[in-house]
Amino acid sequence: MSTTTAGIDVPSGEPARIPTPEPGDARLARLSLNQRSIPSWSVREAVDGCVRAGVPAIGLWREPVAETGLDRAARMVADAGLRVSSLCRGGFLTDPDPAARGQALDDNRAAIDEAAALGTDTLVLVVGGLPEGSRDLPGARRAVVDALGELVPYARERGVSLALEPMHPIFCADRGVLSTLGQALDMAEPFAADEVTVVVDAFHVWWDPALDAQLTRAAGRIASYQVGDWITPLPADTLCSRGIPGDGHIDLAGLTSAVAARGYRGDVEVEVFNQDLWAADGADALATIVRRYAELVAPHL
Amino acid sequence: MSTTTAGIDVPSGEPARIPTPEPGDARLARLSLNQRSIPSWSVREAVDGCVRAGVPAIGLWREPVAETGLDRAARMVADAGLRVSSLCRGGFLTDPDPAARGQALDDNRAAIDEAAALGTDTLVLVVGGLPEGSRDLPGARRAVVDALGELVPYARERGVSLALEPMHPIFCADRGVLSTLGQALDMAEPFAADEVTVVVDAFHVWWDPALDAQLTRAAGRIASYQVGDWITPLPADTLCSRGIPGDGHIDLAGLTSAVAARGYRGDVEVEVFNQDLWAADGADALATIVRRYAELVAPHL
Repeated sequence: MSTTTAGIDVPSGEPARIPTPEPGDARLARLSLNQRSIPSWSVREAVDGCVRAGVPAIGLWREPVAETGLDRAARMVADAGLRVSSLCRGGFLTDPDPAARGQALDDNRAAIDEAAALGTDTLVLVVGGLPEGSRDLPGARRAVVDALGELVPYARERGVSLALEPMHPIFCADRGVLSTLGQALDMAEPFAADEVTVVVDAFHVWWDPALDAQLTRAAGRIASYQVGDWITPLPADTLCSRGIPGDGHIDLAGLTSAVAARGYRGDVEVEVFNQDLWAADGADALATIVRRYAELVAPHL
Repeated sequence: MSTTTAGIDVPSGEPARIPTPEPGDARLARLSLNQRSIPSWSVREAVDGCVRAGVPAIGLWREPVAETGLDRAARMVADAGLRVSSLCRGGFLTDPDPAARGQALDDNRAAIDEAAALGTDTLVLVVGGLPEGSRDLPGARRAVVDALGELVPYARERGVSLALEPMHPIFCADRGVLSTLGQALDMAEPFAADEVTVVVDAFHVWWDPALDAQLTRAAGRIASYQVGDWITPLPADTLCSRGIPGDGHIDLAGLTSAVAARGYRGDVEVEVFNQDLWAADGADALATIVRRYAELVAPHL
């Protein structure tokens, strides 16, 4: 017996609000563990953890996949019967320097190949921030549009969609100049609905006054729905500032219903970057994720 | 001789990039010191500091004005010949509890009276975050709209416009559910252009992909243009995370030109909340502000 059913939430240390659902529980049918929610786990450990907990899908990251080896990782998830809901991440396409740009395009083609090898049709793109020393935000955004045009044919041939992830404006300068779902759709719409898609991540988009209208526009183009929470006060390291679903201010019931109402039928990744969660035992962290998802997200799908 | 011409920028300690403009320099004609950029100064000290540095306008805050006494503060700025570019701040209108709401409306009426007494037609509204324990973001936003309807007649009679300040989405949960200029204009447009206006603060809006289009829509309704900068890594205390103009990622030349092109002819407040700046000597801080404004903002007005 692992500690996953101990009934203590991490990182809060508070008693769990619901019992941990058993593997096979219908509420877990669309849950995916985004691998970076438990970064201490290798691909092997994450796959085994998902199987033990009854989580049927996983969102993989390129770095741990590379550490394991692409083919081995692909076999592990296939042998375990897990779906790969997405591969994170391509992108970083804003640098106008020709050499940097060529390198970024090469790297994205490699990421597309890896997605195909892993059996997922969704490569998440974090588009990149302002180039070093630049204040040309429109220029950085145009560079992303240009790069999409170059990458789409390559991705299409491999059955992989480029999934644009709008990021919270807190990251505009240093990580993602793509700031709203509306902007992502502006970039996506010149392409077919299975060529360029969008990621709806609760942490990144919850504040957007245009969100509901843009979700309507996004119907048929949502490749991934990810959940986390916005907690205050914001932790000092903004990169790791996300909360476990239920610990923050986001109306996950409302957002999940809204995404479902637009026809989204895919897996739902729990993606939480949080130092306290990361410091916890992996199985305990996953049990908390499973409970929160079953309580707060699954009923609204 | 004060240290204001020492030619060292605060908080960086680096040599100043341009000489400090003398009082009367045409570049300073529209500069306003937002009082919270130098919170160690009383109203008396801020007024004297502005006069010495040749800064012709000041953005006042209610708390230091109350400490000085409203009538005394009004006399100080009038006697010094300073314009009051704005009074900060009313708002905090999102709590649906009837008692809290009544108190907030009373407080805003008092703020309107204070603005009129100080001789400014601009009361900046920070609308407030989610009520304690609430995840109802649309409800919080509706509460602001409702409150505007109640406050506008009172403000109109006193010649004060309610200036809606969209805040960076980093503050959506805990300070301001008004997140974009477009959303502010949606709230403002049912009212006359001198009744409900908007604040364009570079720190809050620079990331917005819809900014240029919304500035066009905002023409005639911009009551205040405020400058600061977005620095990375973001300081741990997000409330004090602003940079001095020129220290960060914002294209102040482009934004200033864009605001000017929409016909804005008012004062430009330098508003920087930054612990390092706040720890500096007031006169040194103001000299840095004056130099950066003259170098980076004034040429584009």
